[in-house]
Amino acid sequence: MRLTPDAAGVYPIAPTPFNADGSVDWTSTDRLFEFYAGIGSDGVTVLGIMGEAPKLEPEESVGLVKRAVAKMGGKPIIVGVSAPGFAAMRSLARQVMALGAGGVMIAPPPSLRTDDQIVGYYAQAVEAIGTDIPFVIQDYPLTLSVVMTPAVIRRIVQDNPSCVMLKHEDWPGLEKISTLRKFQADGSLRKIAILTGNGGLFLDFEMERGADGANTGYAFPELLIDVVRFSKEGKRDAAHDIFDAHLPLLRYEQQQGVGLAVRKYTMMKRGILASDAQRKPGAGLTAAAKAEVDYLLARLAKHDPRAKV
Amino acid sequence: MRLTPDAAGVYPIAPTPFNADGSVDWTSTDRLFEFYAGIGSDGVTVLGIMGEAPKLEPEESVGLVKRAVAKMGGKPIIVGVSAPGFAAMRSLARQVMALGAGGVMIAPPPSLRTDDQIVGYYAQAVEAIGTDIPFVIQDYPLTLSVVMTPAVIRRIVQDNPSCVMLKHEDWPGLEKISTLRKFQADGSLRKIAILTGNGGLFLDFEMERGADGANTGYAFPELLIDVVRFSKEGKRDAAHDIFDAHLPLLRYEQQQGVGLAVRKYTMMKRGILASDAQRKPGAGLTAAAKAEVDYLLARLAKHDPRAKV
Amino acid sequence: MRLTPDAAGVYPIAPTPFNADGSVDWTSTDRLFEFYAGIGSDGVTVLGIMGEAPKLEPEESVGLVKRAVAKMGGKPIIVGVSAPGFAAMRSLARQVMALGAGGVMIAPPPSLRTDDQIVGYYAQAVEAIGTDIPFVIQDYPLTLSVVMTPAVIRRIVQDNPSCVMLKHEDWPGLEKISTLRKFQADGSLRKIAILTGNGGLFLDFEMERGADGANTGYAFPELLIDVVRFSKEGKRDAAHDIFDAHLPLLRYEQQQGVGLAVRKYTMMKRGILASDAQRKPGAGLTAAAKAEVDYLLARLAKHDPRAKV
Amino acid sequence: MRLTPDAAGVYPIAPTPFNADGSVDWTSTDRLFEFYAGIGSDGVTVLGIMGEAPKLEPEESVGLVKRAVAKMGGKPIIVGVSAPGFAAMRSLARQVMALGAGGVMIAPPPSLRTDDQIVGYYAQAVEAIGTDIPFVIQDYPLTLSVVMTPAVIRRIVQDNPSCVMLKHEDWPGLEKISTLRKFQADGSLRKIAILTGNGGLFLDFEMERGADGANTGYAFPELLIDVVRFSKEGKRDAAHDIFDAHLPLLRYEQQQGVGLAVRKYTMMKRGILASDAQRKPGAGLTAAAKAEVDYLLARLAKHDPRAKV
Repeated sequence: MRLTPDAAGVYPIAPTPFNADGSVDWTSTDRLFEFYAGIGSDGVTVLGIMGEAPKLEPEESVGLVKRAVAKMGGKPIIVGVSAPGFAAMRSLARQVMALGAGGVMIAPPPSLRTDDQIVGYYAQAVEAIGTDIPFVIQDYPLTLSVVMTPAVIRRIVQDNPSCVMLKHEDWPGLEKISTLRKFQADGSLRKIAILTGNGGLFLDFEMERGADGANTGYAFPELLIDVVRFSKEGKRDAAHDIFDAHLPLLRYEQQQGVGLAVRKYTMMKRGILASDAQRKPGAGLTAAAKAEVDYLLARLAKHDPRAKV
Repeated sequence: MRLTPDAAGVYPIAPTPFNADGSVDWTSTDRLFEFYAGIGSDGVTVLGIMGEAPKLEPEESVGLVKRAVAKMGGKPIIVGVSAPGFAAMRSLARQVMALGAGGVMIAPPPSLRTDDQIVGYYAQAVEAIGTDIPFVIQDYPLTLSVVMTPAVIRRIVQDNPSCVMLKHEDWPGLEKISTLRKFQADGSLRKIAILTGNGGLFLDFEMERGADGANTGYAFPELLIDVVRFSKEGKRDAAHDIFDAHLPLLRYEQQQGVGLAVRKYTMMKRGILASDAQRKPGAGLTAAAKAEVDYLLARLAKHDPRAKV
Repeated sequence: MRLTPDAAGVYPIAPTPFNADGSVDWTSTDRLFEFYAGIGSDGVTVLGIMGEAPKLEPEESVGLVKRAVAKMGGKPIIVGVSAPGFAAMRSLARQVMALGAGGVMIAPPPSLRTDDQIVGYYAQAVEAIGTDIPFVIQDYPLTLSVVMTPAVIRRIVQDNPSCVMLKHEDWPGLEKISTLRKFQADGSLRKIAILTGNGGLFLDFEMERGADGANTGYAFPELLIDVVRFSKEGKRDAAHDIFDAHLPLLRYEQQQGVGLAVRKYTMMKRGILASDAQRKPGAGLTAAAKAEVDYLLARLAKHDPRAKV
Repeated sequence: MRLTPDAAGVYPIAPTPFNADGSVDWTSTDRLFEFYAGIGSDGVTVLGIMGEAPKLEPEESVGLVKRAVAKMGGKPIIVGVSAPGFAAMRSLARQVMALGAGGVMIAPPPSLRTDDQIVGYYAQAVEAIGTDIPFVIQDYPLTLSVVMTPAVIRRIVQDNPSCVMLKHEDWPGLEKISTLRKFQADGSLRKIAILTGNGGLFLDFEMERGADGANTGYAFPELLIDVVRFSKEGKRDAAHDIFDAHLPLLRYEQQQGVGLAVRKYTMMKRGILASDAQRKPGAGLTAAAKAEVDYLLARLAKHDPRAKV
């Protein structure tokens, strides 16, 4: 299904499952997407930063998208197509859309500085991939070192009708959500979906500020779904209760560099992935770190039975 | 008291109290240091990044150190002396030591890149301030964009006998603590104190990895003291229980840009500061953010009566 | 004399003369300013990046300004006041203006990213130093990593009546000068002085694009004065002839890190400075580098007798 | 021919010729490589930063390598294979070597900071592409913001027998060349080729410090060949005379962002390229800039008849 500005809910960032020898583990891949569909995800994002996208051969990337399309039951698939050049971005974008993807996600290259450079970059990207492909702005200054003001995001959205979603992972970004929603209320910004990232570390309050959901990874995406649902139902305390129970682990998974290792290790313990292997180069967990995750899981299981692994 | 490699426990990073008109609030300053001493802090750090140091006139900086010395009952005072040039660093360092400070903290300038540049910078800094002043390495890549490997830290420590402490705020940094302690165990690194920063976001596990305590800010430094004490007593679950109860607020305070506003607002509500004012330029909290802090405090109060404010 | 938007000509960036023991060489300082005045400089800039400003004690900085005021015969003195905090910026700015400086130069801190952050920073700086002090914007992305579009510079100029000059050292920046002059022609930007930096590496064409002169260092500031004068007289070939003769040395002096050593070494050979010493930390020239400078000077002397040293 | 540590002379960085409609101009491509071979180039580098590599489709990249192999008469072809991931790097490297390329060039990703990270990256890259492919280290801190000390380069060279060349474009880098040659003399570094970049801006002295030649672009690669030849023949003044004659234009071509436009415009005027078009996104020259290049060419033609275009 194509991605639209009305998208909402949880789009997990899918890790790419590997076998211990570094080959793609297609069995786990199928199981992973079935898992995401089964818990009620509203879509999925593949080939993101946490999907180890740059380590994949083109045919592997395509294979991943095909599996996602096949298993996600018509839910929109967002595909990361950020690339150092527009030729590669265009090729991948058009190819995955032909395979049934719902839209693409584009991060700005780290060299961009001024407002005009950022706005200009998205104009060029849209010209490259075509105006018919729905796209997501990835706003992630902590990692990409590109800072977009709300006004810059508004310019990109208003200039490009094919922009349908903001993956919001500025930090701190609560006021940014509020400002964008104010822009929408005063009519200066059309409605787009705002799904948040940053591993969900502020999802509790992001929802209250007007986010439509989460577009991020965490070894228990069910938690993200719970928070989004409780929040939409107005059950504030319930949303915070389940969120707070997961926060110690969720925070632990947010460590730059080893976060993906934590996520894969946990998903392996849950039986979703057969292995926690990353393709080279990738940092594994030390024995001390694994023991810390195990301890956090044991503590979490007292509050959330799904953590009994 | 002079700072030594045997330092341990909690050294809160003191905010600088201001009146609403931007002048230093000396009454709150006295109360703040009395509060830190009263709860059992092992020392205090002033003129850190979160102390709004660059906004202070020289005589104000000196005044702050004098109050800390007067009120902290002989506990070591660490003074941030990072500066764009060694002349200013030397002046401030020698002046505050003469006033009774225990040591100084030096952050590397953001332009440093190679291992040798970093090691060379600390050699020059020590030559500038004198080899008789105990100093703390501030290792804070997220903000300073200078990355020090454990081996580089070892070179700095071994080259400079006046280095007594590492303020560890690499992120993620758990393995770094383990590696440094291994260096110490194998005899290649002499013993220094490792106190951790990052607002305490990983203090629970940092203690288990071998940290000696925390050198960081949080509106409830009592929590830091609790975690350090429980951890040293081997009460692992108790340490995590109290830590987890505070984590939602502690995480909220970790937002770059507004973190200090959250901290000052909370400390004002606690009656420690008369005002949450920052000297210009400084970001205040919106009404929405204040309400979020209030909500977090109310939830925290159920677990920790000290949060009833 | 106070700096005005009508400033033009050459304002050399003065190096700070040191004795071999690291103390300020006040005799050479006097001689240096007399030299600048004697060759017809239109003003001078002190405490710039190439003036080793952060290595100076406050009283030394003040002494330098006093000497410049005393020796430059009423020509405007521009004083670099960039600082990590507004308190230090304000103190220094007000102090040097009281001593007779003509204006101050303010560089943006490297952390600024968005257009609004840059504009906001200058608003805060002006609020801090006072609206009565003429100031110069330093636009130097190569070193400061802050990128200002022409539209951002326009906002700063239009917002702040006390802005009188742009030190233009974007690279490449020829089109930026043309754009700013177009803004002025269409009435959207009031007239300010544009003096160029970057060691003069593009001064030949910068003048043709509409610059008013140079605000930069070079061991032969006479060359900068020649190029500016010939250019204003419409003697294009003469301007380029003398520029091209100096370009091999001028380019050699543009090496980041050792450029100041080249400049000081040459000015010592010219008899202007008694020593080429830099205060620690500072890179000296190797014997190989000195021999290269000597060779370049010998070659230059065939075209310009002033280079016979 | 395979690239070896004995490589020397001039390897121009080839621009990629485009038609005005953005398609690759294969006729100009053939003519370009014939031109490089005809003037006595010792090899050529394709798919470098100035080759607009990220804008090319995979089949276009391959086509470019094929033409270079066909036209360069057995001279080594160096192919830029830098990529955000090792999968793409490996694919391209093995493919172009099978087509007859002589070696590959690898730039470090901008995120690398510590010495160990840089050394580790090259180890991983070699593991990815295979130890049988000769490779060139690109050391270009100004653009890549990765700083490699001579000792780090030594580690990479000594660790990886397939490393055969350093593309040296540190700035300033004269002492780096001297240091590396000293390492070689003291036996701690095996012999590799050192070819310099930076558009040749310091080629005159780089040769005297021990460089083997140039691996860089300039609209008149004949100048680079002249300087290298004169220098090797010990004709120091002749080398500098021809270098200095070209320096005004060479410097003009060094402007970041528009340098490639200057180069293509000049090569079009020389009849080598049919068009100065860049594939989108790319900055063209304004009329003012073109007139400046024309003026520089007219001035250059008085010294070098090859510049009569």
